[in-house]
Amino acid sequence: MALTTPRTMPGVLELLPREQIAFQRMLDTIRRGFELYGFLPIETPAIEFADILLTKSGGETERQVYFVQSTGALEQSGRPELALRFDLTVPLARYVAEHERDLAFPFRRYQMQRVYRGERAQRGRFREFYQCDIDVIGKDSLSIRYDAEIPAVIHAVFRALDIGAFTIQLNNRKLMRGFFEGLGIGEGEKQMLVLREVDKLDKRGPDHVRAVLTGEAFGLSSQAADKVMRFVGIRSTSLAEALAQLDALGSGTETFEQGRAELREVLDTVAAFGVPESGFALNLSIARGLDYYTGTVYETTLNEHPDIGSICSGGRYDNLAANYTKSMLPGVGISIGLTRLFWQLREAGLLKTADSSVQVLVTQMDDAQLPVCLAIAKELRDAGIATEIALEGGKLGKQLKYADRAGIRFAVVAGEDELARGAVAVKDLRRGDQFEVPRAELVKALRVELAQDEVQRA
Amino acid sequence: MALTTPRTMPGVLELLPREQIAFQRMLDTIRRGFELYGFLPIETPAIEFADILLTKSGGETERQVYFVQSTGALEQSGRPELALRFDLTVPLARYVAEHERDLAFPFRRYQMQRVYRGERAQRGRFREFYQCDIDVIGKDSLSIRYDAEIPAVIHAVFRALDIGAFTIQLNNRKLMRGFFEGLGIGEGEKQMLVLREVDKLDKRGPDHVRAVLTGEAFGLSSQAADKVMRFVGIRSTSLAEALAQLDALGSGTETFEQGRAELREVLDTVAAFGVPESGFALNLSIARGLDYYTGTVYETTLNEHPDIGSICSGGRYDNLAANYTKSMLPGVGISIGLTRLFWQLREAGLLKTADSSVQVLVTQMDDAQLPVCLAIAKELRDAGIATEIALEGGKLGKQLKYADRAGIRFAVVAGEDELARGAVAVKDLRRGDQFEVPRAELVKALRVELAQDEVQRA
Repeated sequence: MALTTPRTMPGVLELLPREQIAFQRMLDTIRRGFELYGFLPIETPAIEFADILLTKSGGETERQVYFVQSTGALEQSGRPELALRFDLTVPLARYVAEHERDLAFPFRRYQMQRVYRGERAQRGRFREFYQCDIDVIGKDSLSIRYDAEIPAVIHAVFRALDIGAFTIQLNNRKLMRGFFEGLGIGEGEKQMLVLREVDKLDKRGPDHVRAVLTGEAFGLSSQAADKVMRFVGIRSTSLAEALAQLDALGSGTETFEQGRAELREVLDTVAAFGVPESGFALNLSIARGLDYYTGTVYETTLNEHPDIGSICSGGRYDNLAANYTKSMLPGVGISIGLTRLFWQLREAGLLKTADSSVQVLVTQMDDAQLPVCLAIAKELRDAGIATEIALEGGKLGKQLKYADRAGIRFAVVAGEDELARGAVAVKDLRRGDQFEVPRAELVKALRVELAQDEVQRA
Repeated sequence: MALTTPRTMPGVLELLPREQIAFQRMLDTIRRGFELYGFLPIETPAIEFADILLTKSGGETERQVYFVQSTGALEQSGRPELALRFDLTVPLARYVAEHERDLAFPFRRYQMQRVYRGERAQRGRFREFYQCDIDVIGKDSLSIRYDAEIPAVIHAVFRALDIGAFTIQLNNRKLMRGFFEGLGIGEGEKQMLVLREVDKLDKRGPDHVRAVLTGEAFGLSSQAADKVMRFVGIRSTSLAEALAQLDALGSGTETFEQGRAELREVLDTVAAFGVPESGFALNLSIARGLDYYTGTVYETTLNEHPDIGSICSGGRYDNLAANYTKSMLPGVGISIGLTRLFWQLREAGLLKTADSSVQVLVTQMDDAQLPVCLAIAKELRDAGIATEIALEGGKLGKQLKYADRAGIRFAVVAGEDELARGAVAVKDLRRGDQFEVPRAELVKALRVELAQDEVQRA
């Protein structure tokens, strides 16, 4: 029979079991953090009606969407009715609008699912990837205190992920908009173009950027260009400095003052949430999506790996679901693109190889031992210890080698000699040593060892 | 602006947060069971190349597959290159063939992901649903002991799910095939047709079924028809009875004897794994898919709800990935269709409403209290207690009502009076009582309450 070459489409990250375990532990840690802060889980279908996903037709999004058709629909041709979600925000908007009467507001939800984008195939670009999102949605209004809670959650999550020092950077779209209005750049599109130029500061240097801003395309005065570069360059290293920098900005338009007041309150409240001052900072260059965010905006970067870019971004929006309901639903949220983050950490050599989720291998040398091996395994499993049995037996050396390669820390050997003494041997493959325990104390002994392991990890 | 009606496609099960929490707990319990038995996680992309999924073209599967196309591909028309997986078995075959050199065999994997089928819209039929699968894949050969391990895992999982008494029912395709061969029905297709007739026993009665089997379509002798009905009617209620029933079948073809020997060994070994005799039984009517399974086959039913049908099925197959590799990869596995199971349990009123994943609500009555509330919440979260803060304040009664409705058990009230005494009040919304503790002992007190809760649940 002709074989079909086994392969996946480009742009997916398929993992071997030990990598999958490491990935799963990151998912678990993130979920645990979201739950500790009182967020509730939802899941939505991967397939949505295309008209729900593409309310704003045209643009980048539509070009990247994957359409879905059953065989029957395919035969009828025409524009497909169904598509795969490209983020978790549009499905959230649909969910909240659809279930509005059954939800309590502020609605605090977390959602950790895969999304799909028909990206051009390119290293580090994914067509299927996990997003881990939290959002708080208010009905009619939502206290700005929630804008401060989001960084508190994210700080707890990234600390628990243990991937090195990081900083949650904050800005406010109103402050930024007000600033540009003060310079006579009232148009959002133009503000974004200016910001895009300023983004090239590191690469091209200030002289080049100033030349562009004062040139034909933008026509800023030299003074205004300098102001823009100064404003956008502001970063804080402590709460006091952040507040002082905001004070030093001078007075501005109403929008500017509103943004400044919001940012002050958010920074103060983030600290009151117990986030250490080293964990968050002002960064007035952050803009995020122009259309969507209206107040606080966030980005998060690894201090030692700025090249990776933002690993967690989001912000405040005025109205989540205007396409689906007349209700006013302001919200604030943030998203971790976990597949990309995992891939980048792996590329940078920052991922530790995970131990197996299997904690003990019960070895087996001959068939007569099988009942004892099964009984031992049952005791271990009943005690909550993840246990594999070498059901096919074979040479002990081979079984131990397998356990070692698989990242299984302990191997239990219930040989004839040991059993005659009423004992079993335990090999610690990580430490490379071995001890014997009375058969009746095996579970207790392994529990102690594994508990010590937990403590060391924590 | 014209609103788009928020809705999902028919055939998906979208849950409200409290239902989602109950569903998530089932997923967690299943995963925990799989891991306790030493299975390793994998995840595969939802989108696969269509030629990988549809190696056997034609048939029911192809009619139900969802094809996937990016906008660009849509414009080019032609048969789509991509499709959504309709089960986890084909992706497993592709995964094992693709990563063969990097995997250790026997390869024990679990996988809990959603699959997609373009079913006709119908109550209780899902187009997107979770499958929770385990399989053990051998290279060249695989001990029959693994056929006994599968029911041991499933028994542990369903006991932990706590959805009532259940029985894992076993049969063996070789035994069944050998039996029919002995009656001169050598053809697999015809065996299935006979079985389908026998399936109508409950509905139509033995006289009707006998008439059909001895009629034109099948042409069995009256004696042979009785034999078939007797064989297929065999059920055991204990291990000893099962073994005796197998003995009493009389002698048969080589295939028959091989099947009987396998079934004996599997039944014996399931008991040796510590599965109580009430948990598994012989059921010689179980056939499962004709093409795929070649030895042991399983179905699992709820004793009190036989109408729900099999909630977990699988079996032994000779070669997993013949379409993708020349390696011989025999395996054994089983699958839980969790979305359907959850839906059926809910329909039957067997689902308990889950408590919220939020354990404590820290209430807040006026702005001056905010710092204290934030500090209390931080302490609770640092102690691993999932905590929500009523950041917007408002009337205490309203906050307590919210917590009660949301299924949050405890509310912490740090009012002026309590704080003046150096204390806080804790309202237990489940029991409807309340107690006061010194501020410094709050975490300890709540930990004790929550630990008692855990014990009562277990």
